Amino acid sequence: MIIDCHGHYTSEPAAFTDFRKAQIAAGDPAKAPAFPKISDDEIREKLEPAQLKFQRERGTDVTIFSPRASAMGHHVGSEALSLAWTRICNDMIHRVIALYPKKFIGVCQLPQSPSVRPENSIPELERCVKELGFVGCNLNPDPSGGYWKEPPLTDKWWYPLYEKMVELEVPAMVHVTATCNPAFHTTGSHYINGDTTAFMQFLLGDLFKDFPTLKFIVPHGGGAVPFHWGRYRGIAQDLKRPPLRELLLRNVYFDTCVYHQPGMDCMTHVIPAENILFASEMVGAVKGIDPETGNYFDDTRRYIDNSPTLSAQDKKKIFESNALTVYPRLARQLEKQGIAAHA
Amino acid sequence: MIIDCHGHYTSEPAAFTDFRKAQIAAGDPAKAPAFPKISDDEIREKLEPAQLKFQRERGTDVTIFSPRASAMGHHVGSEALSLAWTRICNDMIHRVIALYPKKFIGVCQLPQSPSVRPENSIPELERCVKELGFVGCNLNPDPSGGYWKEPPLTDKWWYPLYEKMVELEVPAMVHVTATCNPAFHTTGSHYINGDTTAFMQFLLGDLFKDFPTLKFIVPHGGGAVPFHWGRYRGIAQDLKRPPLRELLLRNVYFDTCVYHQPGMDCMTHVIPAENILFASEMVGAVKGIDPETGNYFDDTRRYIDNSPTLSAQDKKKIFESNALTVYPRLARQLEKQGIAAHA
Repeated sequence: MIIDCHGHYTSEPAAFTDFRKAQIAAGDPAKAPAFPKISDDEIREKLEPAQLKFQRERGTDVTIFSPRASAMGHHVGSEALSLAWTRICNDMIHRVIALYPKKFIGVCQLPQSPSVRPENSIPELERCVKELGFVGCNLNPDPSGGYWKEPPLTDKWWYPLYEKMVELEVPAMVHVTATCNPAFHTTGSHYINGDTTAFMQFLLGDLFKDFPTLKFIVPHGGGAVPFHWGRYRGIAQDLKRPPLRELLLRNVYFDTCVYHQPGMDCMTHVIPAENILFASEMVGAVKGIDPETGNYFDDTRRYIDNSPTLSAQDKKKIFESNALTVYPRLARQLEKQGIAAHA
Repeated sequence: MIIDCHGHYTSEPAAFTDFRKAQIAAGDPAKAPAFPKISDDEIREKLEPAQLKFQRERGTDVTIFSPRASAMGHHVGSEALSLAWTRICNDMIHRVIALYPKKFIGVCQLPQSPSVRPENSIPELERCVKELGFVGCNLNPDPSGGYWKEPPLTDKWWYPLYEKMVELEVPAMVHVTATCNPAFHTTGSHYINGDTTAFMQFLLGDLFKDFPTLKFIVPHGGGAVPFHWGRYRGIAQDLKRPPLRELLLRNVYFDTCVYHQPGMDCMTHVIPAENILFASEMVGAVKGIDPETGNYFDDTRRYIDNSPTLSAQDKKKIFESNALTVYPRLARQLEKQGIAAHA
């Protein structure tokens, strides 16, 4: 079974994105227009030629699916607006899963908002996990949208949310949203910087002493981290921190959203196969076909299939078993949705 | 000849760093204590067992040398303080070069300050190039120290400085200073994010149409860029930008401050040898010995020497000829300082 652990709902019907524009314009969610009727057919029409087509073509079985990351917009408007929008986004994921229970597993957006305490996200996390059957959440380390005003992820500020994550047995993918800082480009630098920043925060803190079972996925191949693995090993050593494997690799995982073979080879060379989860983020940051290969840039399965070093056992870990470890609720949820794990 | 294009003066005598502390405490540079007498011997004593020892041991010939990047501290105090400190730092580099003219070539710090127009750095740049014989400058894209409040490097805000750089025939290394934002770690995430951010700014802008001869070195292996080269090629293509080689690679260069073999191999695989400049940043971000190899992490010459793909001609470009191209004043300055290029 091939589990893609990183997909966002980027093929939303126009009525959905139009509603968001109107909601932002209204400011106060109570004054926003009513959420429009969107038929099942409208949802299917957009998903079929996008995520579903690519799943079929690439032979991936199921996608761990969450709302469009760039549209989370935690920095837009008030906490009330963020909450109203987040509930709508998560409900849409739930509808998609109801339509295609064998193709998608849910992960939720959190109703974060600048300077708002992370525990305020707990009710929505609980709703998504307990009522909607979701298996994880996306956690934004920078709700300011590119000004980085929140404490590091290792700060006790975040602990109440982590306690709930541990209780519910759900991991978080560390994922920023769009940036409102003109210095950055959302998918080109802000996402990648967010990943690198979060990893370095984990390296400096003792979070996993306090939460030995807490798990994070650092997406986009971990930002710059595998490329600079020597730098991070060296900085940790200079700071008298334990070796990275011991310090972080029981809790921190990397996805495979790296869109060329040499990058993927670098990652699989330095990061243990146990810490890599297959992912493509399709349909996402890069939509085109690589003229150097004739294949879609984000068809990351090929880079794993063509790895010169990964064994068949490593590949099985990356494609399937690691996801079942990192998302403890996944096996049950796969069964519930009628998807049999090959394992 | 092996030219290390990225070295900072990180072995300063204690009197020098003590002065900086007193200067910051005074706030107003007019009220700061007088700059202390520092003897030539004090300078030699600190440099000999550090940069000079490593040059000898590693067989590198000359280092393009600039003030300690993390100490530039553009966000600390007023523009007047930044200017006073910058002149002192550049003068110290000049003294080091006077002591070791065959070992170091100067690159200057600029007296940047948050929200201060870049053209205010022109007099110090001219002084360093025309009077001190420096061949380049370090340009900080984020004088706020981690809050990223300046316009992107492609914005016309920066143009007067670029005009002067072109006139003087000096490139800039894009290099942030220490961060005052607790979300970041200076060498672990802020430096790397700065590199990634600058590259993405270049990708989005048309700076090099306006300045076809302007040249930038993106240090630390280009941040995350080579690792995500497929992502950047793909984003450029989706945005209908020209291919990266055409769009950027006549003006943007990467250094080799990547501290392990698999990372270096990834970079040399995707970035043309013409765009890579040898560098180690010793003595810098990572000071220790890699237990996996028994060599210093930052002994980057080994990773080039051991590259499985670079030809002898590629290595010569990386070690020597590219630097002579990117720093047009370098050949003359090498001659002036009594260093004969092998070429």
